[in-house]
Amino acid sequence: MITQSGFTTEPWQVRERSLHLDVLPQTESLFALSNGHIGWRGNLDEGEPHGLPGSYLNGVFELRPMPYAEEAYGFPDVGESVINVTNGKLMRLLVDDEPFDLRYGTLHHHERTLDFRTGQLSRTVDWTSPAGRRVRVRSTRLVSLTQRAVAAIRYEVEPLSHETRVVVQSELVANEELPPTDGDPRGATMLQSPLCPEEHFATDAYLCLIHKTAKSALRVAVAAEHHVDGPDGWQGSSEAEPDLARYTVVGRLRPGQRLRVDKSVAYGWSRTRSLPALRDQVDAALAAARHTGWQGLADEQRQRLDEFWDRADVEVRGDQRIQQAVRFALFHVLQAGDRAEEQPIPAKGLTGPGYEGHCFWDTEAYILPILTYTDPAAVAQALRWRHSTLGSAQERARELGLAGAAFPWRTIAGRECSGYWPAGAAAFHVNAAIASAAVRYAACTGDEDFERDIGVDLLVNSARLWHSLGHHDDAGVFHIDGVTGPDEYSALMDDNLYTNLMAQQNLRDAADTVERHPDAARRLGVDEGQIRCWRRAADAMAVPYGKELQVHEQAAGFTRRDRWDFAATHPDQYPLMHHFHYFALYRSQVIKQADLVLALFLRGDAFAEEETARAFAYYEELTVRDSSLSAACQAVIAARTGHLDLAYNYLGETSLIDLLDLEHNTRDGLHLASLAGSWIALVAGFGGLRRQDGMLSFAPRLPDHLFRLAFRVTAFGRRISVRVTRDAAEYTLLSGEPLVIRHHGEKVRLADGDTQTRALPEHTPRRAPGQPKGREPVPFARD
Amino acid sequence: MITQSGFTTEPWQVRERSLHLDVLPQTESLFALSNGHIGWRGNLDEGEPHGLPGSYLNGVFELRPMPYAEEAYGFPDVGESVINVTNGKLMRLLVDDEPFDLRYGTLHHHERTLDFRTGQLSRTVDWTSPAGRRVRVRSTRLVSLTQRAVAAIRYEVEPLSHETRVVVQSELVANEELPPTDGDPRGATMLQSPLCPEEHFATDAYLCLIHKTAKSALRVAVAAEHHVDGPDGWQGSSEAEPDLARYTVVGRLRPGQRLRVDKSVAYGWSRTRSLPALRDQVDAALAAARHTGWQGLADEQRQRLDEFWDRADVEVRGDQRIQQAVRFALFHVLQAGDRAEEQPIPAKGLTGPGYEGHCFWDTEAYILPILTYTDPAAVAQALRWRHSTLGSAQERARELGLAGAAFPWRTIAGRECSGYWPAGAAAFHVNAAIASAAVRYAACTGDEDFERDIGVDLLVNSARLWHSLGHHDDAGVFHIDGVTGPDEYSALMDDNLYTNLMAQQNLRDAADTVERHPDAARRLGVDEGQIRCWRRAADAMAVPYGKELQVHEQAAGFTRRDRWDFAATHPDQYPLMHHFHYFALYRSQVIKQADLVLALFLRGDAFAEEETARAFAYYEELTVRDSSLSAACQAVIAARTGHLDLAYNYLGETSLIDLLDLEHNTRDGLHLASLAGSWIALVAGFGGLRRQDGMLSFAPRLPDHLFRLAFRVTAFGRRISVRVTRDAAEYTLLSGEPLVIRHHGEKVRLADGDTQTRALPEHTPRRAPGQPKGREPVPFARD
Repeated sequence: MITQSGFTTEPWQVRERSLHLDVLPQTESLFALSNGHIGWRGNLDEGEPHGLPGSYLNGVFELRPMPYAEEAYGFPDVGESVINVTNGKLMRLLVDDEPFDLRYGTLHHHERTLDFRTGQLSRTVDWTSPAGRRVRVRSTRLVSLTQRAVAAIRYEVEPLSHETRVVVQSELVANEELPPTDGDPRGATMLQSPLCPEEHFATDAYLCLIHKTAKSALRVAVAAEHHVDGPDGWQGSSEAEPDLARYTVVGRLRPGQRLRVDKSVAYGWSRTRSLPALRDQVDAALAAARHTGWQGLADEQRQRLDEFWDRADVEVRGDQRIQQAVRFALFHVLQAGDRAEEQPIPAKGLTGPGYEGHCFWDTEAYILPILTYTDPAAVAQALRWRHSTLGSAQERARELGLAGAAFPWRTIAGRECSGYWPAGAAAFHVNAAIASAAVRYAACTGDEDFERDIGVDLLVNSARLWHSLGHHDDAGVFHIDGVTGPDEYSALMDDNLYTNLMAQQNLRDAADTVERHPDAARRLGVDEGQIRCWRRAADAMAVPYGKELQVHEQAAGFTRRDRWDFAATHPDQYPLMHHFHYFALYRSQVIKQADLVLALFLRGDAFAEEETARAFAYYEELTVRDSSLSAACQAVIAARTGHLDLAYNYLGETSLIDLLDLEHNTRDGLHLASLAGSWIALVAGFGGLRRQDGMLSFAPRLPDHLFRLAFRVTAFGRRISVRVTRDAAEYTLLSGEPLVIRHHGEKVRLADGDTQTRALPEHTPRRAPGQPKGREPVPFARD
Repeated sequence: MITQSGFTTEPWQVRERSLHLDVLPQTESLFALSNGHIGWRGNLDEGEPHGLPGSYLNGVFELRPMPYAEEAYGFPDVGESVINVTNGKLMRLLVDDEPFDLRYGTLHHHERTLDFRTGQLSRTVDWTSPAGRRVRVRSTRLVSLTQRAVAAIRYEVEPLSHETRVVVQSELVANEELPPTDGDPRGATMLQSPLCPEEHFATDAYLCLIHKTAKSALRVAVAAEHHVDGPDGWQGSSEAEPDLARYTVVGRLRPGQRLRVDKSVAYGWSRTRSLPALRDQVDAALAAARHTGWQGLADEQRQRLDEFWDRADVEVRGDQRIQQAVRFALFHVLQAGDRAEEQPIPAKGLTGPGYEGHCFWDTEAYILPILTYTDPAAVAQALRWRHSTLGSAQERARELGLAGAAFPWRTIAGRECSGYWPAGAAAFHVNAAIASAAVRYAACTGDEDFERDIGVDLLVNSARLWHSLGHHDDAGVFHIDGVTGPDEYSALMDDNLYTNLMAQQNLRDAADTVERHPDAARRLGVDEGQIRCWRRAADAMAVPYGKELQVHEQAAGFTRRDRWDFAATHPDQYPLMHHFHYFALYRSQVIKQADLVLALFLRGDAFAEEETARAFAYYEELTVRDSSLSAACQAVIAARTGHLDLAYNYLGETSLIDLLDLEHNTRDGLHLASLAGSWIALVAGFGGLRRQDGMLSFAPRLPDHLFRLAFRVTAFGRRISVRVTRDAAEYTLLSGEPLVIRHHGEKVRLADGDTQTRALPEHTPRRAPGQPKGREPVPFARD
């Protein structure tokens, strides 16, 4: 766990006040910079020491064999793995005759700061070499949100003790040696040197390396350009070889003198474009960056982030940790999604190689909701990416004997990369998450072009999938059998309630949408009979309910199963999947992550208030949160059912997951969906935001710990500010036509600039439901 | 498919009248010789051409890695694969200056005969070499049932046209080159040269090779000795190198003169014994064989088989094909089990490398029942082997979080080798099959030592498994959730009826047995409370029943699921698992193999007659028989429910599976369980044999096609002969004390030598239930 002691708790920054090499791998993830296209882990400029060097390009992967002890029809045999592309952030330094390596010499001061408003990672080092030469190094880097292909570094060195000879080597390095990993040695070996050299150039201060992946045949070009500022007499030289291009600057500096190297790096990749075209592309990006200049890039970055925060900021008073965490979370969500542009938003963004760089349902279910209300253009792009993989998804559906499209459980380029189908292919709910995200986006933005060209395709194909996946029984009830819901400690169940309710919505949304777009319906061959079938299936959808227990069932028969023996489970045995066979988990009442509880949130319309309370109490006792996707959903329903302290604890868990390394794997990259959960827990949980009947509704209530929560929502062409205190909520229409919202059920009309204040209803604290022994959330609320 | 045209239909032989190279791989399986310890495929003496060279030693395997695209807790990572051991059957021949190779020259006559009474495979060849030298070659081989380590060959060559120089090379060859296979190339490569040489010897007519497997570290010794008889002037010489030992005999023969080489081969292997000890072991076996001589070995073989047939023969009149097939089946079952002796009886015996040489539940559920009534000593040995793996099974149970022992789904040495757990680890019913086999054996033989030392351990450990695997619901009903029954087109279902009923019996049998053996109970720590728990679970066992359809359910909720769309399934799409994803199969009503129908057979006491009829009709329409384990069970219940022609068709399918290569994979070895099914279909089906209340009961009825069925049963220290004609059944007590049996429910007392004749009840043919389109059995009954 990263102790907070190394970090300051500040509202707009993550600042590490001294270097902790033991948590270097984790801080590399926390300090990662990305624009959704390029991702640079927060590796030290000089490359070493490192936890895990990482430079990623969204969509660049290598194919790897997927082996099975027993093969079967439809098991995917080739997967996609993100690769570490050419490292453009390397700035090595020689201080007199010794390398600048913080494992040696004396480190007087080391500070790294990630600033959410400037979008820069800056670093200050004060160090004395083993030979006694003291220097100060300052560096700042950014991955541009406004010039998608560009990242930039300002690197500055200044002697503090002696006149010193300084050599700065600015590099591009391909096929970096990576620390060993577990897993299939064949795959790992292949991913160790994934890039086959094609061309290398070095002229003056210009460097370029062009490579191609061996099997996926993706061409990657990286170029860099430098501007040097230093005392007279410095000299620059450059050289290139297949996997290395280097620009070397040598100078002699007296104390007080500085040598500054500004480096612009441009990345490009393509499956189709020729080598000259790709080289032109990165050179053009460099030219634009040169035209903008370092300060220009920094200014643009700040401006873009100001715009974002103006729409997206969530202000929390009463707990500085949460304030910092939610902004950290929003910053990384923005980084992951802002310029992904028809490429996936992976579960870890571009912050690390975890989950092989795959994109899951996390994107549509956790990340896109936030972006819809804060940065909607990114949502359209993400869904256009999904749409671009529709062909593969349709092929996969055919392979599974189904109609429509079956989007993959995990993928980079659209191919199903899940090697364990009971928790992969059978988890069809990813399709509902995609459809739901398309509907939400179209509804909130009114983007008709999107709905007609993209949304309707996603909806029709998913509706067809559901219709072919289910069947009416003799009594007419529509069942979806043998599928896996969000909870991965159950599998292949009949009538998973979450799946059924999401499919129901999906079928209805598809019917509504094609009725609004008759041309699209014709294009897709949807006739009235098909629409009728969808509506009939939706109306007849099975919703399993345990009559004796008076509680909804996660799936048919779930509540009849044996309860997991939590009393006999040792705290060390979590996550359970690392200590128990799937068999044992699947047959028991034990829940990895919110499943029915997620349905209570996303399909709240399907549950009466008392049903929600009973279901939450029942499932809370079974949910062990071995997935980082759980706490936010539990926070929302805990808040909904009046358990505000419990909701607060879950908010803490979901938002601090990486800052505190709660899952012990932040090294592999950030948990973007969990971070997105900070916003969900605050805005949908304590703010009570829902979209119902084409209207925004709020039901704010604050836990004791907070005395103010303020957020903004962009929807229906309006921007609305919501400010909640202990007693009241203030709603302000910041821009757009007047509209009606709901406050705890009451309709409230907002006109431009006008602020409406409403009192919060009384809140009678009730005893919160318990969790499995040892799996209670960390009691942030009681700190 | 092997056309019958190449074979004669004879009651005691399989005779191939001419050589069909296109079905050579299949005939190598059909003509395989084995005693359960050594297995020699029916490869031609001269080695080539071949389909698949094969020499096996029961229990000799190599370890291979089991890879997973996604690893998880408890997935086995190392498997066991049978290996092709040193080939001792090779007899090469040079005719003047040309190799005896039937792909060249002119083949005038070629005949191979497997004789079920002599236990010999004999061959006659009349061939003219490309250079015009005509020779006759006669060979006979046997794998001794009486001298377990020994196999022997008599090889004779005689010129027919010219005085001819003849060279016979009798060889031992290790690490033979095998034809390429599909599957994991790493594993395949490793299994290509599995034997590491340790020692090689050759002196005069004696040869010996000793090897060790690389990873499993099993030492294998093979030695051979020769006796030559020929015209004066022949010369012998020998030589050895690490993977080859060769005894060469050269002679000049005039037409009419013969050169005869008798070869004895002794095999031994050990995990623990030293090289000198193992060499002594095979040399001692050779010394014994020398003492017995070729004719002595042949005589012993005949005598052993006479004894077997005297106990085991099934006489069928009315269909020569079935008569031949059932004896072929019994012969191979005997070969597989007779001298296995604390080694497994693999699904393919030692006839081929199919299923990697693994032993499944087939052994206890299909093979041991026959052996119990015909060769009970082999059953005790087979169950002693299971018992010897109890430690691994207990460890596996612990790994799965269960009590008692969880025997592996597939294994050679006791390790779980199944790489797809929904159809492996979850198929716990293998444990009930083992327990049931132990109970059957002990009951039929009265072998108290076995029951006390072996049976009770198997029963207590399986009862503990079931008790920990299930749970009582709030109403007290005992459920076993999330398991896979025999039908592999369903998986991870709750309350699989077959599993539940078998577990119920297992729990009761365990309770009864420990009550009979208080010392064993103490040894195993079974107290009265535990026994009470077992009985309570058994009494409360859930038996899923579909009230609306008035039919038992294969598992809870099964009959509510969607029916497979048989109308839309093309005949080429069977077996379905090669054309559809498990997902699609699992969620549908489609059945690979008898599951509930097997329960109707093995737990007939749990079903009223009308329930049996309704259930059979219901499940018959869903069962596609994509497993060779199905037809025999369907035959039994078809006969039980009066559908005698249908039963007859299933008898044909189960008994002719390999003679007609119905599954197109006889090349990989014989389907022993299906062959065992011939006996099951005849004796339990048309004979109606059951064991009920400690009594044998019969309910014979013959299909129109047959006019006589006679079989013998050894049980309770008696031997009983049963002869059924169209109208009546005759029961004779051949030996032992008087006893009471049942004939169609009526008690009949048999005293020694006495024959009781009883009329068969009237039989009103009813319309048989249908099968899925295109999956009707081949209508043998209408031939």
